[in-house]
Amino acid sequence: MTGSNPTRVRCDQLAPVLGDLDGNIAQILDAVARGRADAVDVLVLPELATSGYCFQNAAEAREVAIRSSHAVFTRIADRLCGSAGIVVVGFCEDDDGRVRNSAAVIDGDGVRAVYRKSHLWDRETLVFTAGDEPPPVIDTPHGRLGVMICYDAEFPEMPRMLALAGADLIAVPTNWPVGEHPASDRVAEVVMMQAAARTNGVFIACCDRAGTELGQDWNESSVIVDRFGWVLAETQPGAGRATVTADVFPRLARDKASSPRNDWLQDRRPDVYRREVPTA
Amino acid sequence: MTGSNPTRVRCDQLAPVLGDLDGNIAQILDAVARGRADAVDVLVLPELATSGYCFQNAAEAREVAIRSSHAVFTRIADRLCGSAGIVVVGFCEDDDGRVRNSAAVIDGDGVRAVYRKSHLWDRETLVFTAGDEPPPVIDTPHGRLGVMICYDAEFPEMPRMLALAGADLIAVPTNWPVGEHPASDRVAEVVMMQAAARTNGVFIACCDRAGTELGQDWNESSVIVDRFGWVLAETQPGAGRATVTADVFPRLARDKASSPRNDWLQDRRPDVYRREVPTA
Repeated sequence: MTGSNPTRVRCDQLAPVLGDLDGNIAQILDAVARGRADAVDVLVLPELATSGYCFQNAAEAREVAIRSSHAVFTRIADRLCGSAGIVVVGFCEDDDGRVRNSAAVIDGDGVRAVYRKSHLWDRETLVFTAGDEPPPVIDTPHGRLGVMICYDAEFPEMPRMLALAGADLIAVPTNWPVGEHPASDRVAEVVMMQAAARTNGVFIACCDRAGTELGQDWNESSVIVDRFGWVLAETQPGAGRATVTADVFPRLARDKASSPRNDWLQDRRPDVYRREVPTA
Repeated sequence: MTGSNPTRVRCDQLAPVLGDLDGNIAQILDAVARGRADAVDVLVLPELATSGYCFQNAAEAREVAIRSSHAVFTRIADRLCGSAGIVVVGFCEDDDGRVRNSAAVIDGDGVRAVYRKSHLWDRETLVFTAGDEPPPVIDTPHGRLGVMICYDAEFPEMPRMLALAGADLIAVPTNWPVGEHPASDRVAEVVMMQAAARTNGVFIACCDRAGTELGQDWNESSVIVDRFGWVLAETQPGAGRATVTADVFPRLARDKASSPRNDWLQDRRPDVYRREVPTA
């Protein structure tokens, strides 16, 4: 079931610069090249890696929005060509004039899928048009890859629907604004991803970003979580530019047994969930 | 919004003895008395607190199964009489001959609700008949109380439906069989409850049990989690017979704002969740 070779997953916590499309593309291509040099199979890059995050409005974002036919994706595909490598990267998308917070899944042949963030966080609502399509699952040589973006992942419905559609590994480009948390705990977003991984029996790789932007700091907490919800690799909060890498067997996620008589997905009770909660 | 007085929530991690109905009832009544002495408003007791857990089959469980009209519930109500106290206790239920893994919500007037566990764990499938009704939400002087039992809570659909039905605080009687976890992490069940609390903006109080039963040990990890997913009070794994108590304002859970422009429940995208995941 696992095959002989693990899949090397990496999150490369880049530090995009707001509005610097050329510089950000250079960072992305450099990360792809280093991933190839290190035999990375699935490289996850941050949300809005091409553009930065802290736009004041849609007009400002539109200036650096790119189509999914943009040369950067061809150049990533060229660098992956001849390998079985996959890159998942967040980008500021020009979708026929609408500005989207999107993620592209790219292999050696080009863009395999584009997903448009459907849950927008805070001021993103002033900048982006939310996507109305479910997140995709893409069949790859490394198993079935699901995608969500940042705040999407805080809705348990999202990893659940990806798992039900067969995702083995979920890639999550993120920009997690720095948040307070007890010293004894990981950041809240990581706790939620541990639970999402375990309740669905899937691997999850979240790539956060680094680099203060207009005074905004980030958790800088990229993480790769196994299908039991345990952390395989993580950056420390405040790590800055950093990578996390783990070798996993994504197809193990197809075994949903949680006990000799239980299965994370089959044990669901849609008949119960559909009914109205009794109140007294 | 919060009123002047907090709600004192306690989980009393009892050590039920398999098949010892009278002894277990004495433990329960003692816990209720101590709760009253300590001004506890919401007392959560373990799953199957009347009966113990490790039954071999339904016939064995049926011997100590009780109806929800059993005197123990009247005696609990009598002890609560004149207070605004609430008790949530797991019991082995005789439901017209079917054996259920149930929880009763009791106040000074008697049994307010009975919930029958709808997700059965491992050998429970050989002993109990799963419930087909959704978990209830009960309006109390301490806010709206939701109930789930142990493995139920590992299905994100369950806390979600309780939160959507208005639950402020979710009581979770549990028997968590001891499980391995990294030293740097809490037990998996608690991590899942932290995520459930945060993604739904609700308080959660889980009462685990103590006492080795036929060689089976338990996490002994009772926990009270706030609406941001942070632990307010917890027993240490292996604590044995222990209580955790926290003073909370359950109605704060009605504020679901997660940013100036976000709301944990309103931001859901049922239109997206209903659609089929695209695959490529």
